[in-house]
Amino acid sequence: MNAEIIAVGSEMLTPERVDTNSLYLTAELNKLGVEVVAKSVIGDDRDRLADAVAHALRRSPVLILSGGLGPTEDDVTREAVAQALDRKLVFDSEIAAALERRFAQFKRKMAENNRRQAFVIEGADVLANERGTAPGQWLEESGSVMMLLPGPPYELRSVFERQCLPRLARIVPPLAIRTCEMRATGITESELDQLIAPVYKKYDNPATTILASDGTIQIHLRARCSTAADADRLLAEVAGPIQLLLGHRMYSTNGDSLEMVVGALLVKAHATLAVAESCTGGMLGERITSAAGSSRYFLGGFVTYQNAMKVELLAMSRETLERFGPVSAETAAAMAACAARRTGATYGVAITGVAGPDPVAAPDGQLLPAGAVYVGIAGPEGVRAVHRQFPGDRKRVRVFSTQLALDLLRRQLLGKP
Amino acid sequence: MNAEIIAVGSEMLTPERVDTNSLYLTAELNKLGVEVVAKSVIGDDRDRLADAVAHALRRSPVLILSGGLGPTEDDVTREAVAQALDRKLVFDSEIAAALERRFAQFKRKMAENNRRQAFVIEGADVLANERGTAPGQWLEESGSVMMLLPGPPYELRSVFERQCLPRLARIVPPLAIRTCEMRATGITESELDQLIAPVYKKYDNPATTILASDGTIQIHLRARCSTAADADRLLAEVAGPIQLLLGHRMYSTNGDSLEMVVGALLVKAHATLAVAESCTGGMLGERITSAAGSSRYFLGGFVTYQNAMKVELLAMSRETLERFGPVSAETAAAMAACAARRTGATYGVAITGVAGPDPVAAPDGQLLPAGAVYVGIAGPEGVRAVHRQFPGDRKRVRVFSTQLALDLLRRQLLGKP
Repeated sequence: MNAEIIAVGSEMLTPERVDTNSLYLTAELNKLGVEVVAKSVIGDDRDRLADAVAHALRRSPVLILSGGLGPTEDDVTREAVAQALDRKLVFDSEIAAALERRFAQFKRKMAENNRRQAFVIEGADVLANERGTAPGQWLEESGSVMMLLPGPPYELRSVFERQCLPRLARIVPPLAIRTCEMRATGITESELDQLIAPVYKKYDNPATTILASDGTIQIHLRARCSTAADADRLLAEVAGPIQLLLGHRMYSTNGDSLEMVVGALLVKAHATLAVAESCTGGMLGERITSAAGSSRYFLGGFVTYQNAMKVELLAMSRETLERFGPVSAETAAAMAACAARRTGATYGVAITGVAGPDPVAAPDGQLLPAGAVYVGIAGPEGVRAVHRQFPGDRKRVRVFSTQLALDLLRRQLLGKP
Repeated sequence: MNAEIIAVGSEMLTPERVDTNSLYLTAELNKLGVEVVAKSVIGDDRDRLADAVAHALRRSPVLILSGGLGPTEDDVTREAVAQALDRKLVFDSEIAAALERRFAQFKRKMAENNRRQAFVIEGADVLANERGTAPGQWLEESGSVMMLLPGPPYELRSVFERQCLPRLARIVPPLAIRTCEMRATGITESELDQLIAPVYKKYDNPATTILASDGTIQIHLRARCSTAADADRLLAEVAGPIQLLLGHRMYSTNGDSLEMVVGALLVKAHATLAVAESCTGGMLGERITSAAGSSRYFLGGFVTYQNAMKVELLAMSRETLERFGPVSAETAAAMAACAARRTGATYGVAITGVAGPDPVAAPDGQLLPAGAVYVGIAGPEGVRAVHRQFPGDRKRVRVFSTQLALDLLRRQLLGKP
């Protein structure tokens, strides 16, 4: 079964805003086995919206509209749909009374324009909105169903979940949908695709989506079958070979973030962690502590942005720093070792590099280009440092540096450095 | 003049992806004075796309399609547009030769399916794509113009800028567009709107957009006039009163980030900065060092996630820590003072708080709820601490804490604490 989504509102036609309600709606529809085949954004223009509604209804049996149900003149969804279906708008005194009560409850007088929200398209079911003033509406028209939902995401989700999903479940043929989200790092998107395409390309079901961002590649599988057991079997048939092919580059098979995976490994090893950061300025610590419960293993860190701070805060050897320079394998290793020593942590991880935009000079006079990064790891297994040359701007270099640091620690904890 | 944008690709109908090309295209069209009145996403389905194209052409004089120009069977844009316009596809041997050359240059053999990219709709101008294999196409049909652009943003931007903008400029009536982006913090979106709505609501031109995220409120003004001087005059007429009303809550009138503004103030004061972070785990340092050139004023920082680290790394008094607890005004002030002292920085800024999700117990046995945060500032003017109770989840609490810390430092540097 196919669906279309229309988001209503001129603000989503500016260069700053996208419609995100449709992502939530798509996820929910997909779970029912309904595919979204088109979506659009229409401004606050009644005729253009009526035209879009009439056009969509000719093509798709499910149509969802979000937004444009507010109290102002700009809110044209009710009028536009009534026009498209050639139906009347009917004043619903129950809705009006509920609106009055809602305003009274917050000790505010209802403005006259709120009465606009009490108009219902002839033949529509009213969908109660417990989180706002604009109720939704459910309509059926020549074999298609149509939902009008409020625009604020907090309200839309509540109305859709409570009022629309049960109604949709009654008309959509039942289908079991199971998903699997794997995550890998230390490989580019095209390398990964080349490696696993021969596996997933053989299957239309499960559907495979590959997404890359910030050094992580996500592989989403979605299987649709008449029973959950069949869907699970299909998922395993595709996910199994992919996991084998990716080996230790795959860090999660359930959508967990890299920092959560590292945290769980540290807890399992009864180990603690400290960090020392130069070019990332605190981003590594920030990522590690973004996981709730990180106080179980994360002790603290040093942001040694200036060279003098590497000596003063970390107590690393001034001689090492001067001889090899701040961006070097030796300094990265020393920073990691000092971070562990100064805090008493099991592991110390350090990042030093050239975030850019400008290159910096090494002690031997050679220029280190933007993107040159060293990660040091110190632990019970010893101390080592890894070098990478990352492409991209300052932000990308910093994100990839922290990704590399977390991944090296993960592999160290797995015994697969 | 009105435009519509259609993004082609089934991947943008999944719950994970949005079309972002349209944001870039909208910004560029707006600069020419062209308004985007509708946009849509259509999957890789030739008939559905042909229908959408025919429908859009009946409504709008400018239509832009992005994506679906690749070499595979899934790439249906050329065929769909030819079908919608009832025109033939013509094989262009020049494009085919250029494709062959491109592959030879990278020492790869061209796969047969790449020849699909050499087909051009009858009557179309070919738009050279210097950054990829799929050229764009420019078409005119019964008074409307239509562009087919490659989907990858890096290619789309290049083709649009070099090939389409000059052609559009010739057919769009000239209009001067001037914009102004102001940024404020320390005020909620609704408070700000209540304050400045009486100013901007009087004007349709300039158009005003208000966006809130991560504790910053952006106010975008866009004026459209026949001359740049008129547009500038209109902008000043609206921006001036807004700036007066917001006073020191406005930190930027040119779109600069808070960390850039704080950095410029530190440079101007010949001052340096060090930080000490607990619940934010490095995010404050990360934000400060996200600005290129931050090594001019940022010395370094301490991530004292565990209490013991506050004493060991920062050398703050154990008595203060035990008496008032780690989340207290006294500890925040001591952390800030110690960060400055240990590094020799002019200013020390510290954050300590409960990021959540769980509350923590204070030494007096009272529970400190998630979101309770203290920011300390130490500098030539003395030491002080500020308390806030932030709503929201762990991530939001951490972002708002760093926003508050940066804003307090900004006000201190301005002499308006």
